[in-house]
Amino acid sequence: MSDYGGFYRDRPVLITGGLGFIGSNLARHLADLGADVLLVDSLTPDSGGNLFNIAGLEGRVRVNVADVRQASTMNYLVRDREVIFNLAGQVSHIDSMRDPETDLDINCRSQLILLEACRRHNSAAKVVYASTRQIYGRPDRLPVDESHLVRPTDINGINKAAGEQYHLVYNNVFGVRACSLRLTNVYGPRQLIRHSRQGFIGWFIRLALDAGEIQIFGDGSQVRDFVYVDDAARAFLLAGATEEVNGLALNVGGHEHIAHRDLVETLIEIAGTGSVRYVPWPEEKKRIDIGSFITDSTRFRAATGWQSTMNLREGLSQTLAFYRDHRGHYVDDSETPT
Amino acid sequence: MSDYGGFYRDRPVLITGGLGFIGSNLARHLADLGADVLLVDSLTPDSGGNLFNIAGLEGRVRVNVADVRQASTMNYLVRDREVIFNLAGQVSHIDSMRDPETDLDINCRSQLILLEACRRHNSAAKVVYASTRQIYGRPDRLPVDESHLVRPTDINGINKAAGEQYHLVYNNVFGVRACSLRLTNVYGPRQLIRHSRQGFIGWFIRLALDAGEIQIFGDGSQVRDFVYVDDAARAFLLAGATEEVNGLALNVGGHEHIAHRDLVETLIEIAGTGSVRYVPWPEEKKRIDIGSFITDSTRFRAATGWQSTMNLREGLSQTLAFYRDHRGHYVDDSETPT
Repeated sequence: MSDYGGFYRDRPVLITGGLGFIGSNLARHLADLGADVLLVDSLTPDSGGNLFNIAGLEGRVRVNVADVRQASTMNYLVRDREVIFNLAGQVSHIDSMRDPETDLDINCRSQLILLEACRRHNSAAKVVYASTRQIYGRPDRLPVDESHLVRPTDINGINKAAGEQYHLVYNNVFGVRACSLRLTNVYGPRQLIRHSRQGFIGWFIRLALDAGEIQIFGDGSQVRDFVYVDDAARAFLLAGATEEVNGLALNVGGHEHIAHRDLVETLIEIAGTGSVRYVPWPEEKKRIDIGSFITDSTRFRAATGWQSTMNLREGLSQTLAFYRDHRGHYVDDSETPT
Repeated sequence: MSDYGGFYRDRPVLITGGLGFIGSNLARHLADLGADVLLVDSLTPDSGGNLFNIAGLEGRVRVNVADVRQASTMNYLVRDREVIFNLAGQVSHIDSMRDPETDLDINCRSQLILLEACRRHNSAAKVVYASTRQIYGRPDRLPVDESHLVRPTDINGINKAAGEQYHLVYNNVFGVRACSLRLTNVYGPRQLIRHSRQGFIGWFIRLALDAGEIQIFGDGSQVRDFVYVDDAARAFLLAGATEEVNGLALNVGGHEHIAHRDLVETLIEIAGTGSVRYVPWPEEKKRIDIGSFITDSTRFRAATGWQSTMNLREGLSQTLAFYRDHRGHYVDDSETPT
């Protein structure tokens, strides 16, 4: 299917992590498509869940505050949902190295709980899992397609990979239709920018916004690709409506790639504020860095007709404008970011 | 290193799952080499732990009954151990599909607990992890080397793969030297043969021993390779003594491969008892079966000089003789195997 047309009209859907960055943007699309939208979010401190993320959607989506690790709650909430966008997760690589057991609990145990809830109480559901290109680790070759070995460099990557594989096994063995999207770096409005531990792009944006100094590790030659959050949301919508992707884990990457140093220059230029400093790699980050990464999304595009459409300059510009308008909902000036 | 010579003399070592099949055979080798051997085993019902497995080793190995999931216990037990053979695990594929959360707890959380114990309390330890060729899933090509994708077909395979990757990350990031051995089907004395849920080879041996009927699923054309438990034990000893394998996951396969139907014929012939019946695949087993599998162990052999030496006929013959001599310690005739 190359479009989801009327697929989501009145369709009961669930988004785990629905108050987070991608989840809340996806909720907006679904509300506009006329879906019956239920958001589950634990609103865990330090995570990306933020009630302001659904400002303007009042009356068009329902929110249920709950932790996906709570089995009886999930058994109830999945019952009538036809498509489940499974985005709840712990996303900090650094946190996963400090506290591996909590990362395991959130990224593995909770996935089993959700999938068991579907297996036992709603085996007709379709589940779309938010995976990450991080699971590939340091690539052997660029661009990276799905035939590349999965070789994570940190605990978070290992647990995300396991979470993804659970979905494929439940699809293949228990008939709970499921697929996994291996997302590259996603950016855009409603991302957590309170601290630096959930990916560098949100943090760079925060620093540019605050006329701060952006530190680049090494010479900034490492290349990444980026996908704007609305493009990512459309990838989820297409995956949810496309049977051909069931049982597959597919890359979702951006159509532009750029070196860190050029990204930061562009960001500072668009913001009109911020500066850059090149610093040596901190040891704990260097050990889990994966170098340059470019995603090959050929298979996902072929299966769904998806395309990344937002260009990076325009996307960054819209993102900065969003945070300028709503800064107080994303930054607490009384706290020192860590 | 192509031999471990005097490496293990007086060396403090720990074996988790030390009363199990491979663990107890490894303990025998280590005791003979003069090592200071500590065995940890939870003696969980239904698992392979069996005190008779170390009969004859009294006074030469110490046993500490404990569950690897108990962090404070492991923090204490790892303290002075120079080599840790990490063999504790839940090995039943079928059980993992019935109760995925328990499999996660044993095969993932316990691994993090052991590795954290090393990181915090004995970062000089060398850890050798028992992984499995099962993590590859259904192979794209034969024989399978380490460049093949890891694509498990069941929850147990996913969790074993995560357990392996934790070891590599702790090696690369935290300097706890570790490696992983992806073992093919291991057989020999001291394997659990009480029930059929821990691999088919032990169960086939049990049925031949009892003049029972061995059921082969499908036409029995699926090929596997096998490694005798003493050869597997020597693989662990070499890995523990070889620095070049740190940070690597390496295949350990047998030098002979054989179709199920030929294996069973050979087994019945050697035993002089037992019969065979071909039956259709049960649905729950078919869905997680991986077809034929042949292991390529070139990398491990090159790194350590290891070789699989026992031929299959002789190995099966010794195994059957062992169980004939000690049947009462491995089979409870009052219970109906499941």
